Amino acid sequence: MKLFSFFNSSASYRVRIALALKGIDYQMEGVNIRAGEQNGADYLRRNPIGLVPTLVGDNGEAIGQSLAIIDYLDRLYPDVLLLPASGEARTKALEIAFVIACDIHPVNNMRVLRYLTDELGISEAQKKAWYAHWIAVGLTAVESLLQKAGSGNFCIGDSPTLADCCLIPQWANALRMGCDLSAYPRCRRVYEHCTSLPAFASAAPERQSDAVAA
Amino acid sequence: MKLFSFFNSSASYRVRIALALKGIDYQMEGVNIRAGEQNGADYLRRNPIGLVPTLVGDNGEAIGQSLAIIDYLDRLYPDVLLLPASGEARTKALEIAFVIACDIHPVNNMRVLRYLTDELGISEAQKKAWYAHWIAVGLTAVESLLQKAGSGNFCIGDSPTLADCCLIPQWANALRMGCDLSAYPRCRRVYEHCTSLPAFASAAPERQSDAVAA
Repeated sequence: MKLFSFFNSSASYRVRIALALKGIDYQMEGVNIRAGEQNGADYLRRNPIGLVPTLVGDNGEAIGQSLAIIDYLDRLYPDVLLLPASGEARTKALEIAFVIACDIHPVNNMRVLRYLTDELGISEAQKKAWYAHWIAVGLTAVESLLQKAGSGNFCIGDSPTLADCCLIPQWANALRMGCDLSAYPRCRRVYEHCTSLPAFASAAPERQSDAVAA
Repeated sequence: MKLFSFFNSSASYRVRIALALKGIDYQMEGVNIRAGEQNGADYLRRNPIGLVPTLVGDNGEAIGQSLAIIDYLDRLYPDVLLLPASGEARTKALEIAFVIACDIHPVNNMRVLRYLTDELGISEAQKKAWYAHWIAVGLTAVESLLQKAGSGNFCIGDSPTLADCCLIPQWANALRMGCDLSAYPRCRRVYEHCTSLPAFASAAPERQSDAVAA
């Protein structure tokens, strides 16, 4: 199994967490998205979406989209299920994962920020405000969902789910961007607990072999 | 079962398609997102995400996020499965659904377009170019994924899946916004076939009781 990944991509980070939680051995190949390698012909042949990550399974099948990859891994390695098999926990985990993966992350990812800067000519201050705005809108929703779910050390229940795989990278990005995160104590508790666990720690951007200084 | 929905919201439209394909009876309550009703206290108590749709199940449980709702419906009403239970078809359907639900739709939804206009002061022409850009990037990816999957009348295989529930509303929005869609013949074929079917037709924006002229 081989993961095409970029150390600082939060979608890649989600999949690295899932692989680590499941204890799956895999090879990693760095794709430098700052240099545009995700738009190269080689990469696009494998994954026409032109985003990281891509997982190539042992059968050679290439899969894009982090949440589709995690669903695939759950199917192949069901001993550690990241999507609870049924019931309310499953729905709650999916709701949180989608708030992050649909409502926060895509609006703040690199290609969107570049468009804002390069095509619309916004200033650095406007870019920071944009980033902080969507973090605030999204994490306010996540914090409420965690409260409704009675979260503790994890988003849902007593073990990691897809929701944690999404929240940890998003929180790490928000920290890196200097966002004010004081209004989200439940999110913070989950972040602090998860990042203390070896599987989450091993998936962190700074631990990847393709990591470079910012 | 009750759906809180806005006729012209493509995330609501996805869920309406799923409900119709499964033949589920439900009540609909319109939430006028142009007037900000999704940010009212009543709505937020039910769904703290502040977006449509919300599905309230027969047990009173309120669920936000269209893809979480469709997953829930698949679990409760498995006779018509929109996520193939296993295998390659499931992964392919998810990949396409996520390209639309994560990479295209969130960047072009109403609240983002309003931020661009109200906070960043972009012109009508810049807004149109932004919209068309993300449609082009996203549908180029979907078209390639459809080609890899050997699509015909549906995105994947011979019956509707989550991928079609996502593609039809997105294509309808792109048509409404006047985007050039000539480069996506496989997408168009799926759109034309699906919208000829009663379940998809009944879910269309103009058929909803809260529809108003644009």
